Amino acid sequence: MPRLTLAEAEALARAALAAAGAGPRMAAFTAAALVAAEAEGQSGHGLSRVAQYCAFLRNGRADGAAEPAVVAERGGAALVDARHGLAYPAVALAVEEAASRAAAHGVAFLGITNSHHSGAMGLPVAELARRGFVALAFTNSPAAMPVPGGRRPLMGTNPVAAAFPRREADPLVIDMALSEVARGKIMVAAKEGKPIPEGWALDAEGNPTTDAKAALSGAMLAMGGTKGALLALVVELLCCALTGAAFGFEADSFFEEQGNRPRLGQAILAIDPGALAGREAFLDRLEVLLAAMQADPGVRLPGSRRAALAARAEDHGIEIPDALAGTLRALCAPPPAR
Amino acid sequence: MPRLTLAEAEALARAALAAAGAGPRMAAFTAAALVAAEAEGQSGHGLSRVAQYCAFLRNGRADGAAEPAVVAERGGAALVDARHGLAYPAVALAVEEAASRAAAHGVAFLGITNSHHSGAMGLPVAELARRGFVALAFTNSPAAMPVPGGRRPLMGTNPVAAAFPRREADPLVIDMALSEVARGKIMVAAKEGKPIPEGWALDAEGNPTTDAKAALSGAMLAMGGTKGALLALVVELLCCALTGAAFGFEADSFFEEQGNRPRLGQAILAIDPGALAGREAFLDRLEVLLAAMQADPGVRLPGSRRAALAARAEDHGIEIPDALAGTLRALCAPPPAR
Repeated sequence: MPRLTLAEAEALARAALAAAGAGPRMAAFTAAALVAAEAEGQSGHGLSRVAQYCAFLRNGRADGAAEPAVVAERGGAALVDARHGLAYPAVALAVEEAASRAAAHGVAFLGITNSHHSGAMGLPVAELARRGFVALAFTNSPAAMPVPGGRRPLMGTNPVAAAFPRREADPLVIDMALSEVARGKIMVAAKEGKPIPEGWALDAEGNPTTDAKAALSGAMLAMGGTKGALLALVVELLCCALTGAAFGFEADSFFEEQGNRPRLGQAILAIDPGALAGREAFLDRLEVLLAAMQADPGVRLPGSRRAALAARAEDHGIEIPDALAGTLRALCAPPPAR
Repeated sequence: MPRLTLAEAEALARAALAAAGAGPRMAAFTAAALVAAEAEGQSGHGLSRVAQYCAFLRNGRADGAAEPAVVAERGGAALVDARHGLAYPAVALAVEEAASRAAAHGVAFLGITNSHHSGAMGLPVAELARRGFVALAFTNSPAAMPVPGGRRPLMGTNPVAAAFPRREADPLVIDMALSEVARGKIMVAAKEGKPIPEGWALDAEGNPTTDAKAALSGAMLAMGGTKGALLALVVELLCCALTGAAFGFEADSFFEEQGNRPRLGQAILAIDPGALAGREAFLDRLEVLLAAMQADPGVRLPGSRRAALAARAEDHGIEIPDALAGTLRALCAPPPAR
């Protein structure tokens, strides 16, 4: 497998996206986010997405020329319009707005509309935490899960990410989809002809299934049953009702190249600890809980594995499969003459 | 079973709390919240709590003379100190602050410190939604659940509540603890000598158990396994690290009358839809999702049962067990001369 430095990987992704029509800022922000996800071991949100994004840029599901902008605001709250581009420039703008508004107003809530697949939401919250803010982030995604009591998919798998700054350590970062498992696990079981546990999925008729193939044409289930589905509903409404974005059932699947502009929504909350009990009190309290957690030998701090992988990738680069490297290089070639 | 109007029930609870030393405002806010929870069928947060609160007021675990106050603020963010009183006057102050700050700054984040058991968190978010705000609320509670990978309880069951205003209907209200089940269910199984399902609890050594009695001296488990425990950790940090409040493992159990002042924390987020995509766009979007949900015959809107019970109680009053009515009346008697 070829080994690339992070800078090499980023340059490759940027060139591929630019060749597919992404403007320079969109290509740069997208490449940086995908490589950061790849570096921390989240390959599902990493370089494997480049080919998909390039297809969307070429077929119009994403607008490579889009420039995100703040289109509504009041004090700590603002709405960013991603204008149907790839999500990352809009997320980066929302992070900047969240930081400056939380500093000025104590708290900031940024919505993003007309957006797209936003990848690893742990990245923007970690960035805000490095700047001293407690941050939460949410996104919806094309329909994958039913609402509580429902049989057909209406909502996305709706990740929740949170980050908390620490005094002398990387931020504590929590990042999870609200589905019981990642779709990838069901795809692996289907490929291997193995059954899946109950509670992972419904079939196309909305009945519980342990047949992985049936699950792929049905619906994924939320973690924690009804309670998890209720939490995913809260995320769907924060991301879409407040922003005017499309609900999961209005966005075509990303598993097909053809489809509509997904118009997904994201939401980012940032809180300045200095506006409440104070920065020092916050940092003290956090370390008290982390120390109590680590007194239990079974506990590993959330996000610590990702942080270790990212640090290693910074020094040693990343290995990517031959096929992926070939795909990326092919995508960098100029498009054929028309 | 005696039937009481809501006004009668509130007067009874207020008199009992006042006789135990709660000041007039604390008695009034607490009685109103307990009766509202009772009316919507949440008896665990209803009148059954009066005797417990009276014991805490008498033995010093709660200060009946406390007056909550805003002790830190910047723009949309503020910290309310409950000053070791019962939580309800502090929650009511936080709701007022959240509404005025969200109106002015688009978003508000209110922390509450030195607080107490705060009952049904669906009530404050519903109040904010009736005033037009999207609202979320969180609280921690005395240690009941381990952190992810842990064996002993460090965090509370950490409820999450959310409410969304609707155009011509009661707000959509979602309210749940992050434990797999309520402790009451384990208590019932223990009383009946029945086993509990795996995934509900750990025993005192931190091993999974199906023995209800062993579970009661061990730890409850989060809904959704590791993911649920991670969400409960986020709630614990929002409620305690930002506010300076006590973590679950620092607060003595409410199942014992004796113990420390729990110093729990709460957090309330309010967002004005008018500061983002706009109030009309928000209301339109919400109804689109609710209509899609209700097209599935198995779906009942979250909170609809509670709202129906509350409306019925408004007209017909509530029935309470004889023993509870007797306890409440006895608590209203003046304390014995010392």
